[in-house]
Amino acid sequence: MIHILPVPGIGEIASGDDLGALLGRALAPLAPETGDILVVTQKIVSKAEGQRVALSTVTPGARAIEIAGAIGKDPRLVELVLAESTQVVRAAPNVLITRHRLGLVMANAGIDASNIGTAQPDSVLLLPKDPDASAAGLRDAIQARLGVKLGIVLSDSFGRPWRNGVVNVAIGSAGLPAIHDKRGGLDRDGRPLQVTQIAYGDLLASAAGLAMGEAAEGLPVVLVRGCLLPDEDIPAARLVRPLGEDLFQ
Amino acid sequence: MIHILPVPGIGEIASGDDLGALLGRALAPLAPETGDILVVTQKIVSKAEGQRVALSTVTPGARAIEIAGAIGKDPRLVELVLAESTQVVRAAPNVLITRHRLGLVMANAGIDASNIGTAQPDSVLLLPKDPDASAAGLRDAIQARLGVKLGIVLSDSFGRPWRNGVVNVAIGSAGLPAIHDKRGGLDRDGRPLQVTQIAYGDLLASAAGLAMGEAAEGLPVVLVRGCLLPDEDIPAARLVRPLGEDLFQ
Repeated sequence: MIHILPVPGIGEIASGDDLGALLGRALAPLAPETGDILVVTQKIVSKAEGQRVALSTVTPGARAIEIAGAIGKDPRLVELVLAESTQVVRAAPNVLITRHRLGLVMANAGIDASNIGTAQPDSVLLLPKDPDASAAGLRDAIQARLGVKLGIVLSDSFGRPWRNGVVNVAIGSAGLPAIHDKRGGLDRDGRPLQVTQIAYGDLLASAAGLAMGEAAEGLPVVLVRGCLLPDEDIPAARLVRPLGEDLFQ
Repeated sequence: MIHILPVPGIGEIASGDDLGALLGRALAPLAPETGDILVVTQKIVSKAEGQRVALSTVTPGARAIEIAGAIGKDPRLVELVLAESTQVVRAAPNVLITRHRLGLVMANAGIDASNIGTAQPDSVLLLPKDPDASAAGLRDAIQARLGVKLGIVLSDSFGRPWRNGVVNVAIGSAGLPAIHDKRGGLDRDGRPLQVTQIAYGDLLASAAGLAMGEAAEGLPVVLVRGCLLPDEDIPAARLVRPLGEDLFQ
């Protein structure tokens, strides 16, 4: 049986906060066990890492101004999106989908202007610089504090081609197989398995998303207990399909 | 807290089996409660509904033979895929991605040749004809038997553009909001929410996928308990983005 436990007591996070220490304190009452997986929304990691940018400090370039005019977005936000991205996938009225420098194809390069606190209403949050490294850092900090090695997933919510609505996916991980390769396995009838890779990182993020909610009741940290995953450490970067290998294009 | 409970005791399913009665019997020991959600892999629904096709009965047409030759697949399988599809999205060596008549963009139109039993090794399984209707039928049958109205999700595993590995998604549902519209909601700071639609059906399917596994340990039915969803009944068909509205193309 798998349990998805809310982790209460995470307050508003500010730049420079020691998130590992905060998470360790919040987790202690849940008596974390080896094999537990902590799913953390990337937003609080971004905040702790100081990834907040005041729009008033951004000077949009010519390309950002042109795109912003065509799609009806703030040119300063578009400038930040372009700076975070390697490729514009789709620009249409009120839609800007790019390939983030991490390889993630997502709206607005993951830049977030909601639930980022009222102290700086003019500011937005970029994604963490290296989400897998952030996850590994949190794992190490929690292990040092509580003596237990957890798996960590940093999650974000993504739209998808061809499907309505958003789901939570893993943009960073440590201490678990974000993707697990079953190639060579057999099905129950002894035939080679057709499905060969399971995106456990994304399954974990989505499971946690059921408990996290999105609005006023938002919960940034969730513990998943009882999940029997293969004993591998494959970072979430491996969930990103390299450009040119996409099967759907 | 959310719990994901395995539902043991579902044996091999054959065409014509009364799946509602079987699920009712298997669920009884778990004492299901209002609000519980049963996630059922579409494969056993297909089997019960007689969606098995013997490849020896299929005569491939000219287009199927041509595509099969180009991509190295069985022309009879390709014939079935084309018959189930409205559009070929991608055909490449060992890859055939189409838009299924239900609107789902997926490999091989969801036709499955693994874990379908050894009695007919030459056969494959099509998706259920109307997965939302199948889900509603199971809900009604279980309610009649156990007196409790569960949410039902029919799940399948999908590859995704730009991301490696498969995740479980909802291809049918009843008694829950497969997608929930938050438009008009505010974030904790009182700003309009940027993320407006949550794909709860897919989150539930993925959460269940953590417990289901894929190979020898495969478990076709899982109960999700404690999930506080909005009180709506929005079928999984609403997760399919209509052709022409895709934001990523």
